[in-house]
Amino acid sequence: MSIEAASLCPRYHRAVELVGKRWTGAIVRTLMGGPRRFNELLAGIPGISDRLLTERLRELEAEKVVRREVKPEAPVRVVYELTDCGRDLGPALDEIAHWAERWIEARPAS
Amino acid sequence: MSIEAASLCPRYHRAVELVGKRWTGAIVRTLMGGPRRFNELLAGIPGISDRLLTERLRELEAEKVVRREVKPEAPVRVVYELTDCGRDLGPALDEIAHWAERWIEARPAS
Repeated sequence: MSIEAASLCPRYHRAVELVGKRWTGAIVRTLMGGPRRFNELLAGIPGISDRLLTERLRELEAEKVVRREVKPEAPVRVVYELTDCGRDLGPALDEIAHWAERWIEARPAS
Repeated sequence: MSIEAASLCPRYHRAVELVGKRWTGAIVRTLMGGPRRFNELLAGIPGISDRLLTERLRELEAEKVVRREVKPEAPVRVVYELTDCGRDLGPALDEIAHWAERWIEARPAS
């Protein structure tokens, strides 16, 4: 399939909306650094609320981008980590970050 | 700035939400093929409505991703085309399309 055709298909829509949802990029990017506990994610992403982080993590789990792991320790430790599919989002998020650096720098936030 | 820091900043949020908005990717991708009239865009993007195409084009113009050109012909011809900033979104949209091809193929649409 050509890239142009791909851009118009439902798969692409789904990917672009997943990636483009507020906070999704920040969550996935933070997890690129390794597994994180809920409170570490909350502290590491300034501005996100407890409720929104919970919601986004559930969506990312449903999309099989993020996996929730319960570590059998005492006390039990729950961490979130990227699946292979999630790690593979790296290049796309990098390209968006580079574009933002090149083009959004000088413009006022709307 | 590190890529991780970039992913958490308002610029990145703005870029990722612009790219992730429904139809934005399809419109920008279609315009990668050259300038298009409104009705050509409407016909080329199955499923988009007249109203939504108008709305997205205005947003993309406001973000200086798309430029509206009035060609001084008879009858007057109005075309939409990518700015340099818009053309530079190519690699990011390509990476998202590739990720979608690799990972969303076999899964049912939700």
